[in-house]
Amino acid sequence: MDKILRINMGAEGGPQTSEEPPDGYAGLGGRAMTSAIISKEVPPLCHPLGQDNKLIFAPGMLSGTASVMSGRLSVGCKSPLTGGIKESNSGGQAAQVIARLGYAAIILEGKPKDDTLYKVFINKDGVKITPENSLRMLGNYDLVDKMMSEHGDKITCVSIGQAGEMKMSAASVAITDMELRPTRHAGRGGVGAVMGAKRVKVIVLDDTGMKMRTPKDPKKFKEANKIFAEGLKKNPVTGQGLPAFGTNVLTNVINEAGGYPTRNFKTGQFEGVSKISGETQAETETARGGLATHGCHRGCIIKCSGIYNDKDGNYLTKQPEYETVWAHGGNCGINDLDAIALMDRLDDDFGLDTIEMGATIGVAMDAGLAEFGDAEAAINLIKEVGKGTPLGRILGNGAAITGKVFGVERVPVVKGQAFPAYDPRAVHGIGVTYATSTMGADHTAGYAVATNIMKVGGDVDPLKPEGQVELSRNLQIATAAIDSTGMCLFIAFAIMDQPETFQALVDMLNAFYGLSMTGDDVTELGKSVLKNERDFNARAGFTAKHDRLPEFFKKETLPPHNLTFQVKDEDLDTVFNW
Amino acid sequence: MDKILRINMGAEGGPQTSEEPPDGYAGLGGRAMTSAIISKEVPPLCHPLGQDNKLIFAPGMLSGTASVMSGRLSVGCKSPLTGGIKESNSGGQAAQVIARLGYAAIILEGKPKDDTLYKVFINKDGVKITPENSLRMLGNYDLVDKMMSEHGDKITCVSIGQAGEMKMSAASVAITDMELRPTRHAGRGGVGAVMGAKRVKVIVLDDTGMKMRTPKDPKKFKEANKIFAEGLKKNPVTGQGLPAFGTNVLTNVINEAGGYPTRNFKTGQFEGVSKISGETQAETETARGGLATHGCHRGCIIKCSGIYNDKDGNYLTKQPEYETVWAHGGNCGINDLDAIALMDRLDDDFGLDTIEMGATIGVAMDAGLAEFGDAEAAINLIKEVGKGTPLGRILGNGAAITGKVFGVERVPVVKGQAFPAYDPRAVHGIGVTYATSTMGADHTAGYAVATNIMKVGGDVDPLKPEGQVELSRNLQIATAAIDSTGMCLFIAFAIMDQPETFQALVDMLNAFYGLSMTGDDVTELGKSVLKNERDFNARAGFTAKHDRLPEFFKKETLPPHNLTFQVKDEDLDTVFNW
Repeated sequence: MDKILRINMGAEGGPQTSEEPPDGYAGLGGRAMTSAIISKEVPPLCHPLGQDNKLIFAPGMLSGTASVMSGRLSVGCKSPLTGGIKESNSGGQAAQVIARLGYAAIILEGKPKDDTLYKVFINKDGVKITPENSLRMLGNYDLVDKMMSEHGDKITCVSIGQAGEMKMSAASVAITDMELRPTRHAGRGGVGAVMGAKRVKVIVLDDTGMKMRTPKDPKKFKEANKIFAEGLKKNPVTGQGLPAFGTNVLTNVINEAGGYPTRNFKTGQFEGVSKISGETQAETETARGGLATHGCHRGCIIKCSGIYNDKDGNYLTKQPEYETVWAHGGNCGINDLDAIALMDRLDDDFGLDTIEMGATIGVAMDAGLAEFGDAEAAINLIKEVGKGTPLGRILGNGAAITGKVFGVERVPVVKGQAFPAYDPRAVHGIGVTYATSTMGADHTAGYAVATNIMKVGGDVDPLKPEGQVELSRNLQIATAAIDSTGMCLFIAFAIMDQPETFQALVDMLNAFYGLSMTGDDVTELGKSVLKNERDFNARAGFTAKHDRLPEFFKKETLPPHNLTFQVKDEDLDTVFNW
Repeated sequence: MDKILRINMGAEGGPQTSEEPPDGYAGLGGRAMTSAIISKEVPPLCHPLGQDNKLIFAPGMLSGTASVMSGRLSVGCKSPLTGGIKESNSGGQAAQVIARLGYAAIILEGKPKDDTLYKVFINKDGVKITPENSLRMLGNYDLVDKMMSEHGDKITCVSIGQAGEMKMSAASVAITDMELRPTRHAGRGGVGAVMGAKRVKVIVLDDTGMKMRTPKDPKKFKEANKIFAEGLKKNPVTGQGLPAFGTNVLTNVINEAGGYPTRNFKTGQFEGVSKISGETQAETETARGGLATHGCHRGCIIKCSGIYNDKDGNYLTKQPEYETVWAHGGNCGINDLDAIALMDRLDDDFGLDTIEMGATIGVAMDAGLAEFGDAEAAINLIKEVGKGTPLGRILGNGAAITGKVFGVERVPVVKGQAFPAYDPRAVHGIGVTYATSTMGADHTAGYAVATNIMKVGGDVDPLKPEGQVELSRNLQIATAAIDSTGMCLFIAFAIMDQPETFQALVDMLNAFYGLSMTGDDVTELGKSVLKNERDFNARAGFTAKHDRLPEFFKKETLPPHNLTFQVKDEDLDTVFNW
């Protein structure tokens, strides 16, 4: 990771590449890297689909090393969905591979003058960019098959489906998993639309011949990694709950807590949860010859994913995440796991954010385009997106646009990005994160659900406003730091309650880079990332008025607790006072 | 005008009305009234289609009097198009009639819980509100015919077409003219969508039995009105140009100046102007038995409108305005006056802002939905809007949404509102107004074209940045004041260069209200209106970053002058420093 690769898609005479040392960005990784580059190099008022926006792929500080859990990739740009800064984070193989290829960041800049579509191929010998109009409007699955037939099965693909090509604001960037399937996604914020605007259909990565990155102090690094891995194993969430049932273990938990947004955020409990819970999902997967426990990248030891086969035992999709099951399930009044899995597959294939799509269909159902609970209608709506019909274009641009186009008042978005699977009226801490995150509504930006509901890292009553601002603040800072290391965010369950596991993470960073960081330094790293992001957003026109939940969360009560969102505006405005 | 009428559409048990003295708003009229009420009563972060928004109809200070030109109505709300404050200004009969009925403002508040559509009938005996679902999805023309069959021909209608019912952000409020046709519109900013959200299809006004408002000093008022009228008659623009050719007299003028935005703002001159100019239009109207000179309301002496008949001599629409002819003509590469007139008719019937629709079709053409110059395709796109198909819903929500949904980068909007018919790269003063107006891109908010191109009120070189900020500032202040008097903005051509005509206006106000205002007091009135509006917008989240033209006006040069927009951001930020 001693160089930055710039690919200028708008160069005269066709795309041009250049490599440079990461001067000014040295030592940064993941989100710290993407947000620093955007903050410094992207004009905040530029059009997100224009030549001045940049799409940055940055492995984390520990990606490409022997560290467990270090395979997260940060994908950053000015977001077409929010208009603000964006870091969208994905699993899959790409972070490890990019890091081993030696790149601290790959930056797509400029845009071609015409509509030609390109393939970027990167291996140990360098970068090759070729026009590939034959890839036009391929879904991610067919695309990856084609790349495998051309380049073999040692590759990793970073690609867009039809949605990205059509520059839809819900378009994701797909990243292949260990089975070379396009199942992991930098989903949020429309990063796929920016890749589409740059006319890059796929980046094919091959790290054959490249080695794992070596630490400055291999012995200390190995020791710390071992302690860290043991810490994850012994933690009940990362060692048992997530491996057994995946993220969907949350369906029963959040529903029980009354914070499971049902039928476009009308109630906090769904009568159909038992049919779509993680327990039912794992059972179904196992019975059909799939897998209930599976990792998404080399080096993962939590293995919260799985393989979901159809009724005939054929592969359909990876194990749908909790948020996906919620988005296409409870939020649409749908209790059919097979239908939800099919929608997950379609989203992955078209290259769409499952959260944004589910929230969008919920809004569309409120607009009368389909009945809540009608799985077939919901599937057809997603197919419209893939086809790019006018209706599909609307939906593919997300919940805010769909609400606007159909005149719907109840639209669960902040800064244009749809709410994930937790209702802030029953989980107040996550509401603070939704409102104030630099990313728009984003549970991963400061996962207060952990402390509100699972009592990890303390205990803050989810139904009261007290303590939520401080909770969200601390989590947002810590998350910004974790997102910079390349670590999967799920390590947080362990490091929040196990000081020795947190220390092991710090020790790994120190041993790898020859540093002597303390826990406070990690906090400072998180703060510096947020500062860059807040600064960019301010220059893009965001104010405290944008750090607000939609009106209806303050007006409508949510059964069963029958509460509105209670945190005061003036308290929201103190989240970034530290 | 000694009372305010409030109609609470959301009251328990059905709509309720109340009347009150205009305490706190006494002496205000038009835009000063609407903006004061919104600023004070509407929560800046409320949903524009929600129960907390208010739709306010306010005649001007001199409306309902014997004063010439005093028939403009201000329609105000939080805009669904911009998210900021909105005053949309219309001719037609309503201002005079509302004023004579004694109302300084009619305020629609709340919204019904169900979808029932209502008719509001107001005459000397009071207000009657009835559910009228039979009016559902009627166009404005059929609607007005139905109202005439029910209430006779002494009425004035304020109504929405299909677009307003569907709560589209380009929906207008239609106001009938002297022939009881729905040809005058509060077009901009989606005020029709707010009326639709309140579920009011039509307000039928009948001022039978009501008298003209009487001045405190009738003799002085009459004298001032006479001098004022004479001033308008002797001015070459208001006395000759506008009556002879209507606003469309500008087509040749702006094209000659190289500032006529052609094919979605790609060039500043259109090869087809001679076929759609005001001169050609007037000739066509006269030859077909229409009218080239006609007023839009009682008391108008400029008479810049007309009657446009089809080839068979049958009424098709009122004389399309310059901005309409541009929007559906040059901006779409269309040089067919009959096609443009038909689109004007369709816009009026569906209840759509012609400027927003033309700009939207230009963007849609850039997106590949139709070829530039294809009049039939453009007509069909507007018909989609009336039908409310998904494509129609997109287009009916304006240029910004259309650009977003189809991934188009070149979208001429500020604060979400489409540019009118003057390219800021060739008419720099109007660019300052577009960028900084509280209304979004709006030529009427500070019509610098007058001074840049027509050399009215001075001479500021349209191609240079120097002097434009001061010009726009002074015009925005003066306009805010004029928009409060009920006067047609076209009086500005006369009062800017004829001190005695301006003095006559001040004298009329003083004689009517028993005041002793000076010209400086009028300026202060304008400043106070802008201050209210800026304050509301700031509380709604607008910053200096929103006072900017889209990126492409700073990057793409416009032939024939081959300039970009030259006014610096930091200078734009001084417009409201006074």
